[in-house]
Amino acid sequence: MVEIIRGTVIQSSDAVIENGAVAIEHDEIIAVGTWDNISRDYDTSQLHGSADHVLIPGFVNTHSHAVQTLFRGAADDRDLLSWLEEVILPGEATLTEKELVASCRIGYGEMLLAGITTTNDMLTANHSAAGLKAAEESGIRGRVGKMLMDRNVPDGLLAPTDEVLEEAHHLADLYPQGGRIQYSYAPRFIPTCSDKLMAESSQAARERGLMVHTHASENQKECAWVEELTGESNIHALHQFGVLGEHTVLAHGIWTSETEMKLIADTGTSISHNPTSNAKLGSGIAPVPEYLAQGTPVGLATDGSPATGGHDFFLEMKLSGFLQKSTRNDPKVLPARTVFNIATAGGAQALNYSDIGKIEVGYKADLVLLNPSLPHAYPRYDPFSYIVYTAQTRDIQAVWVNGNQQVSESNLVKDISPYFDIAQSYARDQPFLTRD
Amino acid sequence: MVEIIRGTVIQSSDAVIENGAVAIEHDEIIAVGTWDNISRDYDTSQLHGSADHVLIPGFVNTHSHAVQTLFRGAADDRDLLSWLEEVILPGEATLTEKELVASCRIGYGEMLLAGITTTNDMLTANHSAAGLKAAEESGIRGRVGKMLMDRNVPDGLLAPTDEVLEEAHHLADLYPQGGRIQYSYAPRFIPTCSDKLMAESSQAARERGLMVHTHASENQKECAWVEELTGESNIHALHQFGVLGEHTVLAHGIWTSETEMKLIADTGTSISHNPTSNAKLGSGIAPVPEYLAQGTPVGLATDGSPATGGHDFFLEMKLSGFLQKSTRNDPKVLPARTVFNIATAGGAQALNYSDIGKIEVGYKADLVLLNPSLPHAYPRYDPFSYIVYTAQTRDIQAVWVNGNQQVSESNLVKDISPYFDIAQSYARDQPFLTRD
Repeated sequence: MVEIIRGTVIQSSDAVIENGAVAIEHDEIIAVGTWDNISRDYDTSQLHGSADHVLIPGFVNTHSHAVQTLFRGAADDRDLLSWLEEVILPGEATLTEKELVASCRIGYGEMLLAGITTTNDMLTANHSAAGLKAAEESGIRGRVGKMLMDRNVPDGLLAPTDEVLEEAHHLADLYPQGGRIQYSYAPRFIPTCSDKLMAESSQAARERGLMVHTHASENQKECAWVEELTGESNIHALHQFGVLGEHTVLAHGIWTSETEMKLIADTGTSISHNPTSNAKLGSGIAPVPEYLAQGTPVGLATDGSPATGGHDFFLEMKLSGFLQKSTRNDPKVLPARTVFNIATAGGAQALNYSDIGKIEVGYKADLVLLNPSLPHAYPRYDPFSYIVYTAQTRDIQAVWVNGNQQVSESNLVKDISPYFDIAQSYARDQPFLTRD
Repeated sequence: MVEIIRGTVIQSSDAVIENGAVAIEHDEIIAVGTWDNISRDYDTSQLHGSADHVLIPGFVNTHSHAVQTLFRGAADDRDLLSWLEEVILPGEATLTEKELVASCRIGYGEMLLAGITTTNDMLTANHSAAGLKAAEESGIRGRVGKMLMDRNVPDGLLAPTDEVLEEAHHLADLYPQGGRIQYSYAPRFIPTCSDKLMAESSQAARERGLMVHTHASENQKECAWVEELTGESNIHALHQFGVLGEHTVLAHGIWTSETEMKLIADTGTSISHNPTSNAKLGSGIAPVPEYLAQGTPVGLATDGSPATGGHDFFLEMKLSGFLQKSTRNDPKVLPARTVFNIATAGGAQALNYSDIGKIEVGYKADLVLLNPSLPHAYPRYDPFSYIVYTAQTRDIQAVWVNGNQQVSESNLVKDISPYFDIAQSYARDQPFLTRD
């Protein structure tokens, strides 16, 4: 069945069709054009939107931890390492399978309601099969990986290197290249991963056409710790383990030297930019304009909700520009179209997707329909200004992933509301304070 | 008729009642307590909310330009002075009365839908009586002033000093101290105001128990311009004109020296902090923690929508903390409770209100009911973390100003939607490019 979605069609940061429309069938976009042409060529009995709506590609979230949803608000006003060691790691160790599934389903549901149709998600050490299944059942697209760790973490998260790698390979077999959910190799960061774990997970990802997803250079103390462990600066150490390359996305990349930035560019490694997380944890401000100038693929991301408050891509877009403009006293840096590109096609490129992030024939039908009907949407001079500087989550009317409409809000909430009680009782008990 | 609103009642940044309730009658809060006590003492047939809702004081917006709504998105990626000289001033000069009313009603409507129940608003030189009437009719509370200017602006905004003052005094008589809408004396900033205009408007405000609302030290070039005009640094120049004092709120205050900050504190002058505007215009980051440490009253603000994108107080709260944390690499600075206070009671203090900004008996019934029912609201460890770091405009279920329920969204939109067409045709014509 063909469905038609009408609106101002934002195909990408440099292509806009006023009064346009898109035809989708199964999981794919089969036609893009003016409303006049599409309504002439296709049956419009299944119609969404209107000339006043705005249709954009689904947002591509290049770094998330849905598994941390149950710790949202439990670790405010801390820096990365105390945040990690006092709440997040002990928290991850406490999660039962049921709690982990609740955490993931709330997180993925929240992402879908914020227009995120693809996410690059890290689980934890335990219950990873259940986490991957939760991602699949949520309806979202993405790369999802067990969090690989074999040192410097609480006992409940620790396992021998070979055991960790064996489970990773097993899960990679279950979620191979090409599916809606694909496995990713996700070594947490050098301090919690032995040299062998870093090197072999990268090797395995390359062999299977999957990605490596890891953290790097988020925090100055973390960088010092890596240097102490490896005798190298962070990016150089990753390079020695064979981690840098087109198969790898590095989350954060705030504290990278010029040499390190050049190494990232030369190896084709991607950067996931997490403006809210970097701001809330006081980590710093990533040199995004410099990465872009060197041709490094940069995507936007929401990180874990205890690091940000939640998965609001409109907030991430706003903050990505605002942090640069305010600290450089330069309002021209990262204009709206650039930010929009990072949030969509740039993210797709950073995650090695060639069929999402734009609205084009043959691309996956991952779409977000905005209804600019509230006062804040008036007037509109330029659609990119509206989307980046003005739009809010409440403007989202519908979201499609793989051609399936995910939101209506009420259906999604009905679907996952049983998990809300699990989340609230976890928050009442705060087991990370007492268990483990 | 008594109405009861039930929820977690956030009375202020240091008082929370779980499973609480509030009774309101006419324009006032008449009781605050636990649900058990309130439901025992009052008729609950007119009930809003539930144990799962969250009730907060309405947000106090300490600096806005609803009149600029029609230029939203027309001046992105510019610094203050080119933003002002190339779009905003020519734009203000083009506005017909009908367009000005549309601009204001959309702006005030947007504020109400974002939980802003009080605003400190600057109009423009023309049609000020219509602007004040629009504020009154919108249902919002606030201080609203004609923009006073007698030099360095386009002809369409220029008038002789005595004429400007005469109209200001006339409007001040119509909207005296104590009403829901009170007049304020709003000289734009020193570059557009003669010494006489600055001094006499401050004098008149003092005499009438009204406030002075002006811009100061937003941009480094602006500061240099003031110094060129007056031979003094900005804050010292304002002091010479008699502007500093408890009757005055200064918007921005980014580029103030230590001596200037001390002068602001010593005179009891208030600061309106505009994080999004300061970031988007690349103006800089205001030293908010330093103002607070000196006891200066600080409120939060959304400025004009061409400077920010819109009037989203949840965004302002997030950004106020995030800008400080990221640039100081200190996640502890401006924690959630402090930000919440700036957004509510702090703003009320900055605007010299003694009966808004908190939920207390005898205070005005200016209230925002949040419904944390979507996935992003789960779990909740701490209500301030939820409100400041997580909540979104779509969580707002209802807003009361002066005891009157303003939102339902659909009613408000129906009410002001005729203005949307005026806004859209203004944006199509872009008269500020051709008129003047």
